[in-house]
Amino acid sequence: MVAVRDVDSLRRRIQAWRREGLSVALVPTMGALHKGHLTLMDRAQKMADRVVATIFVNPKQFGPREDFAAYPRRETEDFEMLVAAGVHVLFAPDVPAIYPPGFATNVGITGLSDVLDGAHRPGHFDGVATVVTKLLLQVLPDIALFGEKDYQQLMIIRRLVADLNIPVDIIGVPTVREADGLAMSSRNAYLSADERARAPALYKAITAAAAQIAKGGDIAAALAVARDAIGQAGFGTIDYVEARHAETLQPLKAGEPGRVLAAAHMGRARLIDNVTI
Amino acid sequence: MVAVRDVDSLRRRIQAWRREGLSVALVPTMGALHKGHLTLMDRAQKMADRVVATIFVNPKQFGPREDFAAYPRRETEDFEMLVAAGVHVLFAPDVPAIYPPGFATNVGITGLSDVLDGAHRPGHFDGVATVVTKLLLQVLPDIALFGEKDYQQLMIIRRLVADLNIPVDIIGVPTVREADGLAMSSRNAYLSADERARAPALYKAITAAAAQIAKGGDIAAALAVARDAIGQAGFGTIDYVEARHAETLQPLKAGEPGRVLAAAHMGRARLIDNVTI
Repeated sequence: MVAVRDVDSLRRRIQAWRREGLSVALVPTMGALHKGHLTLMDRAQKMADRVVATIFVNPKQFGPREDFAAYPRRETEDFEMLVAAGVHVLFAPDVPAIYPPGFATNVGITGLSDVLDGAHRPGHFDGVATVVTKLLLQVLPDIALFGEKDYQQLMIIRRLVADLNIPVDIIGVPTVREADGLAMSSRNAYLSADERARAPALYKAITAAAAQIAKGGDIAAALAVARDAIGQAGFGTIDYVEARHAETLQPLKAGEPGRVLAAAHMGRARLIDNVTI
Repeated sequence: MVAVRDVDSLRRRIQAWRREGLSVALVPTMGALHKGHLTLMDRAQKMADRVVATIFVNPKQFGPREDFAAYPRRETEDFEMLVAAGVHVLFAPDVPAIYPPGFATNVGITGLSDVLDGAHRPGHFDGVATVVTKLLLQVLPDIALFGEKDYQQLMIIRRLVADLNIPVDIIGVPTVREADGLAMSSRNAYLSADERARAPALYKAITAAAAQIAKGGDIAAALAVARDAIGQAGFGTIDYVEARHAETLQPLKAGEPGRVLAAAHMGRARLIDNVTI
């Protein structure tokens, strides 16, 4: 694996592959890699000849009171994991390589960005959309892979890729979970042993709500039960527990394809999760 | 010349050229073509193997009280001019081909978009930036050409292409003028014979101001003289007459590369123009 830090070096590598007729997959990450990321790398390798992984903790997607400074950074371990995963190029730019002085452009998505996590993290999805647009245009891959754990992010990326005519296929990959159901996340590192033991209640609660709704149960009642269970398990602030249309993320109506999504705080960690209905 | 209306057909043509190793130039227009546009086509042909021209009157860059409905549309004449100019493909989509139902993405540029025309046409440059991003990503040309007549637009496009890492060279082409100095513009069609006779005063006034400033004359005094001359010539509302830094469009300081830019109303037409200092 080769690690590159600047866009020109990255593009030279990719152009060499293109001249050989090789296909390219992109897996953008913020590092602090876990099995969920490795599943993305694995899937990427099965779908394309060459895999580019990126590690960039994107300041634009963190709010002023969020955990940008504290976000786990483990580049040595990440590097070893990516080598073992057979990734061909790691693109790990510093902040000025992505946002040089004078940078002034914002990519925003109306509607999808304003609900759920967007309502609780103003500007977050503008930051995501802007950096993902940049990474996609830096690499111009055939496919790019994103985890369903960040489901709203995945829907926003699908929307912006279609809207801006970025020539790439976006592949969503199911969430990878610990044995007890907790969605793998770099932010799980913030949990104490006790919090870690309580955290799977989030997944259990939304899974139960999704099953109730799938059976034709009352949506509001199912969500209320889930909220209750999450509170009982020792979560602090519950940002939302919602049933939404699986694509538009608007409030779910009976008969539509749906998704239950939740975000709640446990100690220092803000955990999110979602399941299909 | 082949005219195509949808992105898939457009991309098939371009991919065929790419397989032959041909280079591609893009010239985006809103139609109602004049000699200024033809200069862009000419330049494009000298710089690339194949030329794609687009005609799309972009609703997103017109304000609610602006001239979207009235904007001149002359597709038959445009078509003949493009054939004569040796353009290879005309891309002339309808509005839903560019903005299908559910479209929700906006490309915005802070700072550059807020001054001059941006201050007088809220949302205008977001509309420009969004559609130009789309056209660039639909065609993925080697170069794209824009007239300096829309100087602020050109600076915004340079900024967004750099910021989003769109792999294209942006070529600015000097304004083409009538014999009496009036900048060629599709909106000149709005002028009555009398208004047309008075309109060149805009260019004369900013040229004189630029010459004064270049000689070391007081910037504010030179602009005041220009405003006065434009008013005297029978222009109605003068939106702005400003001397700005040639790249950032911030107020000009002595010794910096500069540009004098102006916008003023003459009858139904809002005319803009600019010159280097």
